Amino acid sequence: MSLKAQIHEWMVRHREEGIQLLQNLVRIASTQGNEQDAQLLMAGKLFELNLDVDLWEPDGAVLEKHPYFYSPRTRFTGSPNVVGVMKGEGGGRSIILNGHVDVVPEGDLLQWRSQPYSGEVLDGKLYGRGASDMKGGNVSMLLALEALQGLGVRLKGDVIFQSVIEEESGGAGTLAMIVKGYKADAALIPEPTNMRIFPKQQGSMWFRLVVKGRSAHGGTRYEGVSAIEKSMLVVAHVLELEQVRNAGISDPLFEGNPIPIPINIGTIGGGNWPSSVPDTVTLEGRIGVAPEESLEHAKEDMVRWLELLETKDDWFRESPVELQWFGARWVPGSVDPAHELIRIVSEQYTGVTSRPAVLEASPWGTDGGLLTVLADTPCIVFGPGSTATAHHPNEHIELDAMFEAAEVIALTLMEWCGVAEPVEAEGKDAATAEAAEAGSNQEQGGQDAGELSPSNEHDALA
Amino acid sequence: MSLKAQIHEWMVRHREEGIQLLQNLVRIASTQGNEQDAQLLMAGKLFELNLDVDLWEPDGAVLEKHPYFYSPRTRFTGSPNVVGVMKGEGGGRSIILNGHVDVVPEGDLLQWRSQPYSGEVLDGKLYGRGASDMKGGNVSMLLALEALQGLGVRLKGDVIFQSVIEEESGGAGTLAMIVKGYKADAALIPEPTNMRIFPKQQGSMWFRLVVKGRSAHGGTRYEGVSAIEKSMLVVAHVLELEQVRNAGISDPLFEGNPIPIPINIGTIGGGNWPSSVPDTVTLEGRIGVAPEESLEHAKEDMVRWLELLETKDDWFRESPVELQWFGARWVPGSVDPAHELIRIVSEQYTGVTSRPAVLEASPWGTDGGLLTVLADTPCIVFGPGSTATAHHPNEHIELDAMFEAAEVIALTLMEWCGVAEPVEAEGKDAATAEAAEAGSNQEQGGQDAGELSPSNEHDALA
Repeated sequence: MSLKAQIHEWMVRHREEGIQLLQNLVRIASTQGNEQDAQLLMAGKLFELNLDVDLWEPDGAVLEKHPYFYSPRTRFTGSPNVVGVMKGEGGGRSIILNGHVDVVPEGDLLQWRSQPYSGEVLDGKLYGRGASDMKGGNVSMLLALEALQGLGVRLKGDVIFQSVIEEESGGAGTLAMIVKGYKADAALIPEPTNMRIFPKQQGSMWFRLVVKGRSAHGGTRYEGVSAIEKSMLVVAHVLELEQVRNAGISDPLFEGNPIPIPINIGTIGGGNWPSSVPDTVTLEGRIGVAPEESLEHAKEDMVRWLELLETKDDWFRESPVELQWFGARWVPGSVDPAHELIRIVSEQYTGVTSRPAVLEASPWGTDGGLLTVLADTPCIVFGPGSTATAHHPNEHIELDAMFEAAEVIALTLMEWCGVAEPVEAEGKDAATAEAAEAGSNQEQGGQDAGELSPSNEHDALA
Repeated sequence: MSLKAQIHEWMVRHREEGIQLLQNLVRIASTQGNEQDAQLLMAGKLFELNLDVDLWEPDGAVLEKHPYFYSPRTRFTGSPNVVGVMKGEGGGRSIILNGHVDVVPEGDLLQWRSQPYSGEVLDGKLYGRGASDMKGGNVSMLLALEALQGLGVRLKGDVIFQSVIEEESGGAGTLAMIVKGYKADAALIPEPTNMRIFPKQQGSMWFRLVVKGRSAHGGTRYEGVSAIEKSMLVVAHVLELEQVRNAGISDPLFEGNPIPIPINIGTIGGGNWPSSVPDTVTLEGRIGVAPEESLEHAKEDMVRWLELLETKDDWFRESPVELQWFGARWVPGSVDPAHELIRIVSEQYTGVTSRPAVLEASPWGTDGGLLTVLADTPCIVFGPGSTATAHHPNEHIELDAMFEAAEVIALTLMEWCGVAEPVEAEGKDAATAEAAEAGSNQEQGGQDAGELSPSNEHDALA
């Protein structure tokens, strides 16, 4: 049996354990500030896989001096980062596998058909906040490593497995990885791309718009100016900016994307009394930044566009909308679509699924921009979840995709990092022998590796 | 000197004490739940005026069974009502003087040029939340009673001075007065009418609209439905209802009012993450109810109008806007413009100010509707404040108007309740003698009442 077939068979035989692992992860409500239990679970898995595990709480006092640091908080007590390093045999290319464990809040509970952290499996899908974004992807990576170990495959290059916090609010977890010195020849992040490959990713920034009105008694509301009514003009105006900015996007990787770099207004709040004219409304949102655009350029676009508001309504001349940049920012990133890692992932994807690989530019920011730009580690994004459900009620992941992604990642690691020759060392156990044989299938032509040792696998996937 | 002139002179001489009293009241931030200190001050004043004072905390358990009870709360611990009864000599008409001490929140602090509870006096105006709505009116009433007492005027009819809580959130304070049995031949509320006289007053009700969207990741926001964008349609739609309802208003008392019965959307809130498409927005507001309209009719208008939303956007067919009636309601009220009390106030107003009286329908609800409808006590509204600043930043009152209103109210009490003949009792002191003479000026023709006793007055206005 080819090693590719063995990896597939390994996934089939470990399906239940893989699902159980995802369930355990999803059942931990690892929203911002509550990541510790999820990270301990990840660290435990990496430890079981005999990786060198590093678990630490990022030092906010150091991070906040970094120009790329953005987070609503500067204390990360109880929110550790985790790294597991699988040292290669030498002579191969290294790779960072990066995934975040933080999840966005569950939103309107009434729209969830069961508990948001249920981990319930129905019709081949596992439900729960974070299933797609991106605990399913994290499990794919763990399964890939575990399958390689289970099959005794030893890689030449290092694999640096990063389980990070804070991706959903600005990337401070991955920044802490970079500050600590982690880098590699390339990186892969299995964010929910729905199995598409993203060589380019948009960045994004959070903004806050403070819209002013003038209070009055609601019964004589014509004596005041409603900040709610004015905010309607502002929302419409900002949506026009989205149109203008997207009209300038011609990158074929965005083909078929109705809004390549969206501006999303995510929160609104204002007024404090039903019978009073509201004097302030605050809007918060994110602006997408094109892969080759700078954050500064996008900021300038917004600033200049808001200045046009006064041409639409004199009120804004007297009371201009206040613009604040706050909280999260994701740096855009761009990797040459001809990059070797992209070719490998594409081919392995097609090999595993018999479907053509789809290359696109990402519709959202990830930590990949930081890796590409700051750590000099070209990063691509490819993962099994789907943004059709990420950040939604009833978020779920197709379990088949999670296992397919695991196969693609395992095969990609072998081709990118290289597979070490079996060493005829004394005392090597049966599994190592099998692995050496299995690993050699691709490199040297197929030999039947025989039955794998169940006991060895179970140790790893306990 | 005529008694009218003496009342004016009394006001001139007690101007500083009147201003000080209003300052003391305004400096108490008597928002909902925090009325106690203001009520103790009011009770103290009424006690100094030798009225029979009744101070009690309304029993929410009793009130909440009443069909006209509306409040966000059912416990009134620390929020007492106050009544002071000035028993008449008999044979005259009784009157309720009603004012509320609760004030709306101060709103955006940045828009206040000094502290919202400063009580600062500048250019003849006293500033602070509640100055116009309606602590200035309360002081006008107190000054009127105090001037009559200071001048030794004894009325035939009873004056029932009601200092209530909860006017700004549904009238539970005045309802508690009615439930306790207080009623009279007529009532006057010095809410901020800017010295106009309101025989009719609109009612109003609070409503809540829950607008649904469908959450999604902001980077693929086209996969979701923004509750913020949908709420813009809802706000515009509700403003159209306001137009439709106001087009049907032809009462000449509303002449010159740009929006007789406004619909005000006072608060908005929704979404919980800048990078997520918001799935819920909640709007809260008040709908004006015409003086002769029922609350039920206005409710039906709103219900039917919201049903039309689905003709504007299919989304609302799938996810109709949820309408809730909550919290405050003010019952509309209508007193025949030919009512005797209206004639008296009008004439006294012109007598004091040399300006023609202006009759209008009120642009907002007051507790007067409850008095008119439930207590069989026809209520008119006339007061010195202005809604141009009520519920606004930098709320203030023209102090001249407060003293003019006090004169009008004093003269109105004399004419409505009747002035008792001086009784030649033994032991009556000089002030009583003066008062009897002063009171007789109007009834029997002028006699010079001579110099008033300052010591007596100071006792009363300590």
